[in-house]
Amino acid sequence: MPLAVVFIDGKVYALWKSLIDSLFPETPIITLQGGEEVKSLPAARRIWKKLWQYKVDKGQAILLIGGGSLLDVGGFCSSTWKRGIPFVSVPTTFIAQIDAAIGGKTGINFKRGKNLIGTFAEPAAIWIYPSFLSTLPTRELKAGWVEAFKHSLLEGGNLAEKLFEHPFSQLPSTSLIQELAQVKIRIVREDPYEQQGTRQLLNLGHTLGHLWESFTLSSASPLHHGEAVAIGIVQESWISAQRGLLSPSLLERIIEKLAKEKLLLSLPSFTWREWERLVSQDKKIRKGCLFMPLLVSLGKAQVEAVSIRELREAVRWYRHLVKE
Amino acid sequence: MPLAVVFIDGKVYALWKSLIDSLFPETPIITLQGGEEVKSLPAARRIWKKLWQYKVDKGQAILLIGGGSLLDVGGFCSSTWKRGIPFVSVPTTFIAQIDAAIGGKTGINFKRGKNLIGTFAEPAAIWIYPSFLSTLPTRELKAGWVEAFKHSLLEGGNLAEKLFEHPFSQLPSTSLIQELAQVKIRIVREDPYEQQGTRQLLNLGHTLGHLWESFTLSSASPLHHGEAVAIGIVQESWISAQRGLLSPSLLERIIEKLAKEKLLLSLPSFTWREWERLVSQDKKIRKGCLFMPLLVSLGKAQVEAVSIRELREAVRWYRHLVKE
Repeated sequence: MPLAVVFIDGKVYALWKSLIDSLFPETPIITLQGGEEVKSLPAARRIWKKLWQYKVDKGQAILLIGGGSLLDVGGFCSSTWKRGIPFVSVPTTFIAQIDAAIGGKTGINFKRGKNLIGTFAEPAAIWIYPSFLSTLPTRELKAGWVEAFKHSLLEGGNLAEKLFEHPFSQLPSTSLIQELAQVKIRIVREDPYEQQGTRQLLNLGHTLGHLWESFTLSSASPLHHGEAVAIGIVQESWISAQRGLLSPSLLERIIEKLAKEKLLLSLPSFTWREWERLVSQDKKIRKGCLFMPLLVSLGKAQVEAVSIRELREAVRWYRHLVKE
Repeated sequence: MPLAVVFIDGKVYALWKSLIDSLFPETPIITLQGGEEVKSLPAARRIWKKLWQYKVDKGQAILLIGGGSLLDVGGFCSSTWKRGIPFVSVPTTFIAQIDAAIGGKTGINFKRGKNLIGTFAEPAAIWIYPSFLSTLPTRELKAGWVEAFKHSLLEGGNLAEKLFEHPFSQLPSTSLIQELAQVKIRIVREDPYEQQGTRQLLNLGHTLGHLWESFTLSSASPLHHGEAVAIGIVQESWISAQRGLLSPSLLERIIEKLAKEKLLLSLPSFTWREWERLVSQDKKIRKGCLFMPLLVSLGKAQVEAVSIRELREAVRWYRHLVKE
């Protein structure tokens, strides 16, 4: 199938220009901004405009090269252009290689709500080139390790032990990337459209994580997705321990690991009114409770109904923990 | 499943306010403009904004009441809100009841291209309330009958005979609406994602029909979609007869019927240069030929490669027929 257009993160293109140009000498290459800001309706409009300009149709594919955000908006635009054209995803960040690129979810943010507009659409292929991680900023690599850590908590066993040990400042091996990607693939295959509940387990740490990410989205120093998820993992693990589901020792181990990696970051400033408004926008809310996964033990999580009050208490506890 | 919001064509709401208010006393009712202009990104944005405002989630459904355009944009927004919330379609025009509401296509226009952005998404239900047709303007009713006539040519048998007899000025019976909707349902079921070619047969009369519609789109007196399709049916039937596929007597019968309904309308003014430019933009063109469905007999159509020369001859013949 002919390749119509390559959409690539501008920063990645700057770093890998000669490789990309030699791989796609005949194809128009469009650079996009990476990061969460690209997941917007105006950015989607710009992509659709390029698809229109290059008269892209169903007999052609497009290539998306970048982090999770670029793949999310690019996948959304592909899946809605002429009711769906094929796209190939090339994740360039650690988090995208083991998580964001896999699972067929596309989306853009709307009114500060994450992924409020989106589709389920599988890429025609996912190409993973581990060397891209060599040019990834340290902070982004670390954020990727948080998602890897979350995968390992869900998987348990040997993988969890590896992640507790592995320093988040170092590059993962190719085989570890594969192992981690397999966790996501296995869970997604069991529940491709998020109807069985299995897939919901991947949201471990993400309910509160997303919230903190949203809060800082338009601030001067936004949290990385992974950094926000690290906070979410700690807060949600505390809720699980409070309910007697998670052992205090495992909670302690998780806190220690993330403290060691300097991931117990301070919360952004917010009012409880704003906070409640954002919580009530969560997709997983039903009758005032959030149906969210809680960790029970290494390799086991389950969806529980958590009240807004419990979430608020977890936030208060965390504030105390990190001594704001 | 609780109903979150009702989106309704403003004109329909004005005419049926007491019924709608009594049916949905507790549900927010949002009016939208009807017609092709509502199939735009700004209109989609307004709908998403309402879904956001009313915190609509997957546990709720929305109701769409209006013609094909409103259902198209409303379906698109539903299918992309939180990666798909259920929507119920209530088509209020004849053409929407038997055609546009059925088939799971949603879409909006982009850069003057029709349906460039959209999804395949089935409504949770389609509710047809035939009485809505009693307040439909005569011209729109008649335009709906043209689409009904086209359905009946594809179906043949008893249904085709009924349509040849039925005056286009009168309302269809409930059972006739059902029968006509079944034609579309049957064809769509055979080829839900337009991959087999079966669904292409529904384009009978639409290749030249769309062309005439486009020509008059920005004129003072634009042709209705159905009026343009009536011209297309006659011209394309002539091509089929010229090729020896369609019997001259059936061509004569089609001409007589549409003449009786005063649907052999004059062509808009155009230059052949403009005409050729528009023809060459058709999505179905390959190597100078348009791959379009032609009627072979009542109940039988097939996709044929038609040259631009044949199309031009058909237009010349039609001009002579209607004695411009």
